[in-house]
Amino acid sequence: MAALFRGSRNLLQRCNKHVDLVLVSSRSMASKTPVGFIGLGNMGSPMAKNLLKHGYPVIATDVFPESCKELQDEGAQILDSPAEVADKADRIITMLPSSPNVIEVYTGPNGILKKVKKGTLLIDSSTIDPSVSKEMALAAEKMGAVFMDAPVSGGVGAASLANLTFMVGGVEEEYTAAHELLTCMGANVVYCGQVGTGQAAKICNNMLLAIGMIGTAETMNLGIRLGLDPKLLAQILNMSSGRCWSSDSYNPVPGVMEGVPSGNNYQGGFGTTLMAKDLGLAQHTATNTKTPVPLGSLAHQIYRVMCARGYANKDFSSVFQFLREQEEEPEKKGD
Amino acid sequence: MAALFRGSRNLLQRCNKHVDLVLVSSRSMASKTPVGFIGLGNMGSPMAKNLLKHGYPVIATDVFPESCKELQDEGAQILDSPAEVADKADRIITMLPSSPNVIEVYTGPNGILKKVKKGTLLIDSSTIDPSVSKEMALAAEKMGAVFMDAPVSGGVGAASLANLTFMVGGVEEEYTAAHELLTCMGANVVYCGQVGTGQAAKICNNMLLAIGMIGTAETMNLGIRLGLDPKLLAQILNMSSGRCWSSDSYNPVPGVMEGVPSGNNYQGGFGTTLMAKDLGLAQHTATNTKTPVPLGSLAHQIYRVMCARGYANKDFSSVFQFLREQEEEPEKKGD
Amino acid sequence: MAALFRGSRNLLQRCNKHVDLVLVSSRSMASKTPVGFIGLGNMGSPMAKNLLKHGYPVIATDVFPESCKELQDEGAQILDSPAEVADKADRIITMLPSSPNVIEVYTGPNGILKKVKKGTLLIDSSTIDPSVSKEMALAAEKMGAVFMDAPVSGGVGAASLANLTFMVGGVEEEYTAAHELLTCMGANVVYCGQVGTGQAAKICNNMLLAIGMIGTAETMNLGIRLGLDPKLLAQILNMSSGRCWSSDSYNPVPGVMEGVPSGNNYQGGFGTTLMAKDLGLAQHTATNTKTPVPLGSLAHQIYRVMCARGYANKDFSSVFQFLREQEEEPEKKGD
Amino acid sequence: MAALFRGSRNLLQRCNKHVDLVLVSSRSMASKTPVGFIGLGNMGSPMAKNLLKHGYPVIATDVFPESCKELQDEGAQILDSPAEVADKADRIITMLPSSPNVIEVYTGPNGILKKVKKGTLLIDSSTIDPSVSKEMALAAEKMGAVFMDAPVSGGVGAASLANLTFMVGGVEEEYTAAHELLTCMGANVVYCGQVGTGQAAKICNNMLLAIGMIGTAETMNLGIRLGLDPKLLAQILNMSSGRCWSSDSYNPVPGVMEGVPSGNNYQGGFGTTLMAKDLGLAQHTATNTKTPVPLGSLAHQIYRVMCARGYANKDFSSVFQFLREQEEEPEKKGD
Repeated sequence: MAALFRGSRNLLQRCNKHVDLVLVSSRSMASKTPVGFIGLGNMGSPMAKNLLKHGYPVIATDVFPESCKELQDEGAQILDSPAEVADKADRIITMLPSSPNVIEVYTGPNGILKKVKKGTLLIDSSTIDPSVSKEMALAAEKMGAVFMDAPVSGGVGAASLANLTFMVGGVEEEYTAAHELLTCMGANVVYCGQVGTGQAAKICNNMLLAIGMIGTAETMNLGIRLGLDPKLLAQILNMSSGRCWSSDSYNPVPGVMEGVPSGNNYQGGFGTTLMAKDLGLAQHTATNTKTPVPLGSLAHQIYRVMCARGYANKDFSSVFQFLREQEEEPEKKGD
Repeated sequence: MAALFRGSRNLLQRCNKHVDLVLVSSRSMASKTPVGFIGLGNMGSPMAKNLLKHGYPVIATDVFPESCKELQDEGAQILDSPAEVADKADRIITMLPSSPNVIEVYTGPNGILKKVKKGTLLIDSSTIDPSVSKEMALAAEKMGAVFMDAPVSGGVGAASLANLTFMVGGVEEEYTAAHELLTCMGANVVYCGQVGTGQAAKICNNMLLAIGMIGTAETMNLGIRLGLDPKLLAQILNMSSGRCWSSDSYNPVPGVMEGVPSGNNYQGGFGTTLMAKDLGLAQHTATNTKTPVPLGSLAHQIYRVMCARGYANKDFSSVFQFLREQEEEPEKKGD
Repeated sequence: MAALFRGSRNLLQRCNKHVDLVLVSSRSMASKTPVGFIGLGNMGSPMAKNLLKHGYPVIATDVFPESCKELQDEGAQILDSPAEVADKADRIITMLPSSPNVIEVYTGPNGILKKVKKGTLLIDSSTIDPSVSKEMALAAEKMGAVFMDAPVSGGVGAASLANLTFMVGGVEEEYTAAHELLTCMGANVVYCGQVGTGQAAKICNNMLLAIGMIGTAETMNLGIRLGLDPKLLAQILNMSSGRCWSSDSYNPVPGVMEGVPSGNNYQGGFGTTLMAKDLGLAQHTATNTKTPVPLGSLAHQIYRVMCARGYANKDFSSVFQFLREQEEEPEKKGD
Repeated sequence: MAALFRGSRNLLQRCNKHVDLVLVSSRSMASKTPVGFIGLGNMGSPMAKNLLKHGYPVIATDVFPESCKELQDEGAQILDSPAEVADKADRIITMLPSSPNVIEVYTGPNGILKKVKKGTLLIDSSTIDPSVSKEMALAAEKMGAVFMDAPVSGGVGAASLANLTFMVGGVEEEYTAAHELLTCMGANVVYCGQVGTGQAAKICNNMLLAIGMIGTAETMNLGIRLGLDPKLLAQILNMSSGRCWSSDSYNPVPGVMEGVPSGNNYQGGFGTTLMAKDLGLAQHTATNTKTPVPLGSLAHQIYRVMCARGYANKDFSSVFQFLREQEEEPEKKGD
């Protein structure tokens, strides 16, 4: 906020870094200028639409033409590559599947940094290895741009409803400018610390989420086997110390709650493959920091097995189905 | 006593079971008659005191004289054995460490069932194997008494504050009478189903609690290693899908919350040994019902290892400390 | 061995227990007298046949008429119940699926102990909870009989080839007599200690076997994914510190070895359900002795999940197939 | 072998790669020329000494002067940096702790590739990520040198006794030249495939070893708790399907075997920290190839916890001690 009050005369005495900040500040004061958006998948598409709804012109690109077309119909301008987007927008959001995609989109031959303008604010909402975020931040800084990691929590539903939680890492002075954009797409925007801590917070959240979901599935299954009514058991857990988001907001047992994937044959939601990917990241960072994560590690393995056994595209709450006895017995169908 | 109020004409048309129910109903209508209480340990003692506070005369016994003395000072009448208590009270609550204790107190040579009066309501709040609860219920029924399992959740703090959650199993008609007594000691009383389902609900809750606590400890530890401030991380988890009771009401990281054992060197609370015991029960019931519980199983093993490594009497949230790197390095002290 | 030299005159001065020993000794000296055999399943049938091959008359019974018929064709005499067998034979071997079966066959209404003769040697080769073995030993002793636990290792193939390993627990003086019979059916007979230690040894062996098999399956799968030829990898493991029975004698990867279930679509062998059962026993004894068994616990859970997912009747080495990517991926997993 | 018969005249017509091969062949024919050795730690030092024993002049370097001095006393020539070694030897063996060390020693400012001569054979016996081996191979190829990965199995004892197992990956034509050197230091030298497969084989072996060791520790501990004599139990396992290297060649229970670390307070051998490192590599490659490794994953976590709890420098068989009840229990655990 203080940036708004910086007189340009003072800034001329500051070093390059601060010149960038000034440019960023002026960027944030020039509201509703075009925002670049790269990555228009399940998450990126509704996020970009929410920017449009808030009156921001959006300049976008994606490797899949159908995704581009859809955004174009909503009013976005479509360009051919990240570099071209960088040429036209001084605030860019990226939403990509994994580290290699981020590296390519930022530093590849047609990448953002090929044409990025000084002072551009780059917000990467992908969920990737924090060390890659730090690499991108260094590369961006060399080009005079500012990079922040801002991965999200909430899933496709929350993306549509602009209900996401953003966990932001980067230089604190940039947070205001980022906040302005992110609040169009999310209900919670949290500053976590230096670059990479947004990823750290996201990875930690998802590891605990996975543990809670598998734990809830095991517990509900056991309770049902012991004669408890599932709805009653869920109520008891939710008023007791067993309470967690998976049991009270996303229960994996069909019929216990409405409006969640378990009531829709585990369609939609947050796929098992994506959860396995996030848990792989968590395991990776844990190994690199010598942190013991026994349950997180096992949760990763469970989702990994599920990917190999037909659950790859089901919502991650389908672990309940995975652990349950198969309906058809006794001549077990081979697998 | 209650017999004085029974119209014999009506009763002759009912079957034996309903005769018991009438006896029980009249029991519940004669409020503030003495309540028996067997087992005056960390939990039983504050529970019995809360009954006294509500104006119920308490007739109690325990194998440890000091526990008895303490209750006596509060106004309870102390007798020498469960049988003697059964002789004097037609509502009895038991709060014992494990299945063998329960079997002894109910069916042993000086046990409750040696002198229990017809129509007595027996409420066992111990946490034991549901199949033992069912055995006791059958044995009680032979003596014309009614047995309900009503294990608790909440720990020593909640016991003192009458904030416990009771999970009750048994014949539904008895629930009202049980409810009357239990609400003196708890804030939540839930009817779960037939005998044994109270234990089932308790065991399920504690398995999910253990999974959530270890998961929270791993997650907080990982986040701290990745550069996140613990308080901030806890806030983020608690507003996101990682949220659970262990992170928002009993955080295991010193300094994140007040009034929890992590801020008091893990003293008090709910001991690791007790959690290991509950998880052993969960594992046992899971094996018997062929239910896969991978995370619950591993949680059991982790607490089991902790018991062997000096954490037996610390609060179960000390798992955070267990997973953390030891302060003194590099010549690691042997163990 | 010493038993062979005991003069009967001396023994008359001994107490009841020693009289039993005399009777046992005389039993063992009267070779080729009928041997009772109860339980003619996948294991019991070939075991009984091996006794016949060694010239022992066999008096048998089983709940399934087809199993009885098969043995009858081989020359065994079939009776109607365990009690009747006990009436006719003073050495009896039992081979039953689980603890409840053993309790029924020994102590049930038509059980062995209803008609057992003083001095009878009872050898139970079932794999059950050691505490049940101890119960049966006590019950047998009351009837003047001697009970030993002698569970086996080796599977159906070894049963046919009389290649089993017997792990025997019971009073040491009986070992000779047991040894005589067991060597007809096995290549290794080992005295483990008091009653129950045979079960302990068996349970321990199978827990380590399960861990080794799953470990081998994971390792082979990983190596193949990293570009190693399976046969070469197995050779390397088998000459290195990774070597174990599962990798060098029962490799779970099709094509690596001949004559093992992995080369026969995992048919035959030692079923997943049976392994899950043994691991449940291991877990049970571990919990009762407060022993941490993290890998054993997880191995139990893995086989438990496999039972629920179509692998119940496949050989336990099918865990390799379970962990592998499914050939047919209807919906391609993303990422 | 064929290399021995290549006339240099023919080779001049071949492309650059084949010129390198000629240089390599001539290298291998000029036996006993100096061999470079970089990394003189617990493993590298005895390995280099074995080369000296076989009559190879050794030109070595290490960051620790004491290690250099020790080798110098044995007859090696010590130089100041990897680059200088590369300048003097056309066969170089490296034995370093981890990927960053390898990257530094090969590609750093004073690294091998700064001065490496065309046709040099580079054998890296470090245990690192296979993808780093592949990177080094590419970098070496650019300089006209040939890189092979040849990690070892066997530990410090085997290193001294020249009993190591080498698992070699790289172009097959180079295998002969590598074999010549490696047989001075090991009893088994195995060609695994392309570059990186040596690492793959090593990582797989150590993952299975860790699983076997923890499994053996759990099993021995359980058996002892169930009343079995440890030596007897080990014998039974070793004649049965539970048999593995950890139980029959490196038993973790003190008193069961001689000449292993368990009999020497777990000193020496193969440290827990190193095992944790190798398991981290295994997990990393498993995640990258989407391979489920539940037991391997948990083994990694167990050793990670042990590192944090005082076992970092003990032999990895100390897991038995870690799982055992502590002798001294300050506050007796209840129950």
